[in-house]
Amino acid sequence: MKTFNEITQLVSSEIENLDWEKEPRGLYDPISYVLSLGGKRIRPAFTLMACNLFSDDLQPAIAPALGLELFHNFTLLHDDIMDRADIRRGCPTVHAKWNNNTAILSGDVMQIVAYQLIAKTPEKYLKQVLDLFSKTAIEICEGQQYDVDFESRNEVTADEYLEMIRLKTAVLLGCALKTGALIGGAGKEDAERLYDFGINIGLAFQLKDDLLDVYGDEAAFGKKIGGDILCNKKTYLLIHALKLAKDQDAVELNAWLSLSDVNPDDKIQAVTNLYNRLEVKKICEDKMSFFYEKAVANLEKVTVLSNKKQELRKLAEDLMSRSD
Amino acid sequence: MKTFNEITQLVSSEIENLDWEKEPRGLYDPISYVLSLGGKRIRPAFTLMACNLFSDDLQPAIAPALGLELFHNFTLLHDDIMDRADIRRGCPTVHAKWNNNTAILSGDVMQIVAYQLIAKTPEKYLKQVLDLFSKTAIEICEGQQYDVDFESRNEVTADEYLEMIRLKTAVLLGCALKTGALIGGAGKEDAERLYDFGINIGLAFQLKDDLLDVYGDEAAFGKKIGGDILCNKKTYLLIHALKLAKDQDAVELNAWLSLSDVNPDDKIQAVTNLYNRLEVKKICEDKMSFFYEKAVANLEKVTVLSNKKQELRKLAEDLMSRSD
Repeated sequence: MKTFNEITQLVSSEIENLDWEKEPRGLYDPISYVLSLGGKRIRPAFTLMACNLFSDDLQPAIAPALGLELFHNFTLLHDDIMDRADIRRGCPTVHAKWNNNTAILSGDVMQIVAYQLIAKTPEKYLKQVLDLFSKTAIEICEGQQYDVDFESRNEVTADEYLEMIRLKTAVLLGCALKTGALIGGAGKEDAERLYDFGINIGLAFQLKDDLLDVYGDEAAFGKKIGGDILCNKKTYLLIHALKLAKDQDAVELNAWLSLSDVNPDDKIQAVTNLYNRLEVKKICEDKMSFFYEKAVANLEKVTVLSNKKQELRKLAEDLMSRSD
Repeated sequence: MKTFNEITQLVSSEIENLDWEKEPRGLYDPISYVLSLGGKRIRPAFTLMACNLFSDDLQPAIAPALGLELFHNFTLLHDDIMDRADIRRGCPTVHAKWNNNTAILSGDVMQIVAYQLIAKTPEKYLKQVLDLFSKTAIEICEGQQYDVDFESRNEVTADEYLEMIRLKTAVLLGCALKTGALIGGAGKEDAERLYDFGINIGLAFQLKDDLLDVYGDEAAFGKKIGGDILCNKKTYLLIHALKLAKDQDAVELNAWLSLSDVNPDDKIQAVTNLYNRLEVKKICEDKMSFFYEKAVANLEKVTVLSNKKQELRKLAEDLMSRSD
């Protein structure tokens, strides 16, 4: 069994070994750049750790694991255009550093390279892994579309929001785990349990992200605190605040949402104060814990020795207590 | 053996059967729209015709054939954003009808659906067809990047231009033919001959496109004549005109290229007059014929009865004499 640290070192060195020294530079430089910015590499780590539950040989899972990381980074390139996000991981995003067209086209290539890496799955599992990946990739696009749609909608329910983040974030974690499990030789039921573990951890992970955007530490978080508040993003916090705010609180919250020419720090402070008053932080934390507990239960049901699952258990815990 | 008309009818009805009546509508409506605009469907037709050379059973080639058409349409969505092209096939492009973000995300989904369709290739041929497709898809992105790069470069040679159009246009035709041949059970050499046929027809096809943009019939062409001239696109015609223009012609041509605030019709007329004086139309036509003859020779070498190749032969001929 490899530890999480050994796994991420393996992933990092494999990502560094990918060759982007090709022409045309305008296409490959941005890919090299975005991969050099790092990130938690959770998806490929999940794939390799899930594989490792059933097999000591991680080699057959490495290429598909990298494929999932490439795909994830591709979605960041395109999402950052759509969300007009100029900073990620403390650095300029690709469309900010180059331009939109570059981010579109380099993203397209990353998606294809992702498929090339997935296609290196051992032939025995290829069709199954490939179909899971495509299904997941489409769901992620659907999630992004809902996210965009929600921006211009007046009302979004908590359930709609959870379905959106399931599609946009959770399914790729489920896919990463199931892919590793399949390649490791897991039975169908264990593969599904790991998929469900990924879904529930993914939902908890995104709720943590919503919390960090308001209550996180700016330096550790790598982007400005309060970004979601500034753009009126209908997060789990805002959805509940809108539901709970009465009288003067409701008037005040709606005023901050509709005012366009405001001092950013004032708005962040005021909306955060409202969140505190309405105790939506706790609602979000409770929901996060709910999904986290479900995830832990999914993992416990996987039919391998309990000590083999220790690293995944610990990673799940770390993701919930993270500050970035 | 099916005729070309029978093949395109089959393709059209299969494309109509694809189901886009799914949520979120903002993601799938644009896909349904762009596919409803038609197009020549040459790529899927090539796949099925190549398959038909070796097998009477076209069924296993249908899904991959549609995948290539989906991929082609995906590239149009993204290229039209990059090229700021608002009209295609006489209708508004997706980013013009909706917006850039929609064209990005719906395009991304089309690319994934293309892979889902390719993944339906019979398992015996799956890995080979998948790898050919991914290699081709990357080359197409490289071609698009060169195309974008050439816009801001002072000098582009005829050879560089031909390499760009090989990547951007020809390889997908080669891929379409080779895919069909493989699924039909062709030997390696015949599959390569059909790939080469596609490359050469593709090069000739793009040179024909350059000619049609200047000398075509606006109604039949489906977009405005002279578009390439207006945006100073370094087509085979312009590259040669720049090389051949001397003295007063050179001064005049460079003036039209550098002036930004001109009457569009005046510029198109003046540059066309220069093309005529410099006889670059003939240079382009000769090169087109050169590739066409190579394509015909590639096709003749394919080891099936000559009469079986009649429909492909005729299609190649029609593509060269087309007015749209």
